Amino acid sequence: MAPQFDRLSHIAVDWGTSSFRLWALDAQGNVLAERRSAQGLAAASSEGFETTLEAHLAALAVPDGVPVMMCGMVGSRSGWVEAAYVDTPATLDGLVAQAVQVPSTRRRIRILPGLAQRDPARPDVMRGEETQLLALASAGVTGPACLPGTHSKWVRMQRGEVEHFATFMTGELFQLLRAQSVVAPAVAGAVESDPAGTAFALGVGEGLSAPETVSHALFRLRAAWLLTGAEPADTLSRLSGLLIGAELAGAARLFGTLDGVALVASGPLARAYRAALSIAGVGNVAFFDAENCVRAGLHAAAITTFRLERNAP
Amino acid sequence: MAPQFDRLSHIAVDWGTSSFRLWALDAQGNVLAERRSAQGLAAASSEGFETTLEAHLAALAVPDGVPVMMCGMVGSRSGWVEAAYVDTPATLDGLVAQAVQVPSTRRRIRILPGLAQRDPARPDVMRGEETQLLALASAGVTGPACLPGTHSKWVRMQRGEVEHFATFMTGELFQLLRAQSVVAPAVAGAVESDPAGTAFALGVGEGLSAPETVSHALFRLRAAWLLTGAEPADTLSRLSGLLIGAELAGAARLFGTLDGVALVASGPLARAYRAALSIAGVGNVAFFDAENCVRAGLHAAAITTFRLERNAP
Repeated sequence: MAPQFDRLSHIAVDWGTSSFRLWALDAQGNVLAERRSAQGLAAASSEGFETTLEAHLAALAVPDGVPVMMCGMVGSRSGWVEAAYVDTPATLDGLVAQAVQVPSTRRRIRILPGLAQRDPARPDVMRGEETQLLALASAGVTGPACLPGTHSKWVRMQRGEVEHFATFMTGELFQLLRAQSVVAPAVAGAVESDPAGTAFALGVGEGLSAPETVSHALFRLRAAWLLTGAEPADTLSRLSGLLIGAELAGAARLFGTLDGVALVASGPLARAYRAALSIAGVGNVAFFDAENCVRAGLHAAAITTFRLERNAP
Repeated sequence: MAPQFDRLSHIAVDWGTSSFRLWALDAQGNVLAERRSAQGLAAASSEGFETTLEAHLAALAVPDGVPVMMCGMVGSRSGWVEAAYVDTPATLDGLVAQAVQVPSTRRRIRILPGLAQRDPARPDVMRGEETQLLALASAGVTGPACLPGTHSKWVRMQRGEVEHFATFMTGELFQLLRAQSVVAPAVAGAVESDPAGTAFALGVGEGLSAPETVSHALFRLRAAWLLTGAEPADTLSRLSGLLIGAELAGAARLFGTLDGVALVASGPLARAYRAALSIAGVGNVAFFDAENCVRAGLHAAAITTFRLERNAP
């Protein structure tokens, strides 16, 4: 074992549709080394999941026997081994107890299951975010939580239990509109929305106050470009603001007050949602870094799961 | 001239992004013959607009000298000759007076301009629908008008004047979501939404009453398919209902009561919007066939324009 690895306890892996992130952790959850790649589900399905994982472990000289805790789409039907959804209301302890075993001759490997809300009036699913919720539960979060992304999750937690949640397609709509709709030429060349600017604030304000006219506001982005040559960068910021503003209006409808929300995000998404929550006048927002949360959740699950197994006869 | 053409007066053409429709009309606007093709803007740009048009006219043995009135994207910047937008508020008579002349040695050809709303708070454009409004004005329509489509137009008319209008991206969102989003597998194989069914009605009801949660409702379509195997046909109907319901909520916000609305549509779109307006409790809906309206608008414009020219010295 490489010298810096004398404290190596276990491996945490967040394996999604389009990305792979791996951390080598000590027993306290400190990061000893990490690996990142674009080997999401599609790539890994063709290369083989075990081959992909062991190649990353070999690159870090991780010996056989070091256990691995994983989460994300790797546990979906099209992943490595399916980790069937756990139904809400679900305790996060129960979630960890349901981690599914992956056959391997070299080490213990487990995949955390996703969550399913089978209420016929509001069917919903998540896979990956539940692991971030483990970290929130450890931090004692009880109010609503917002986990923005391609599919933003809003979650109501209470004493370590996920009561219910709702997914908004905000990020996916943003990508579709930006790349494939008649709005696309109006944002051509713009790289990133600027949540500190006026255009973003105008979008958030309109999405919040008039969510029923969002599909009209979207067309206006094109018309403003045609008629007045609106700047692509401003238009992209306004588009982002509109969709996030409408999401906040929807979340407020489903969750009541958003005050005290736990925002779990990193990078540009974190900046955009912080700004939008501020514009919406939401108070007492608690900020959590999304990547730290997923790692902390995987660590907590690994400690519990693999310790239990060590104690078994 | 072919015998059935002894009454031939003029030609009407609706030339859009993806379709070409031509009618040979007598002086009363009766249809003597018609042609339809998929030679929209993209196809015509490479073949040549005049070549395409004259080939259709030759196929009907229309002699030189018979004038042609056109509308649609053929008058856009990427069309044959640009017919610059007329600004709102705009009288429909004024619109006809601004028809732009297309150079041709064989006949008089005109393209009707689109409308632009330059109010910076609600920039908007239309090109093609304004010709249907000519027919509505002749019919004395003064209330709101709804012209559903890829980009649905809602219009406020008063005494032959277009006061203002608003475009909703409903049809384009439907296509994007149906074909390219995570909702796509949940509607795979479904051909058409059924506006007479329960799923459509549930969608309309939800879009109307909770438009701020539409992007959540969209994800629920996928979740219902994953968790309960919801039928693709029902899911497609619900998707259609949701988006149309949200459009009606938005239109009501912008236009006040929708009672007495003039619905200008044909085929499946007409059935869907009729059903949605009924579910929304909108009274006194006046129905107009979209194709009849565009033809009647082109006819009225042709009579005015070409008569004026005949009387000129």
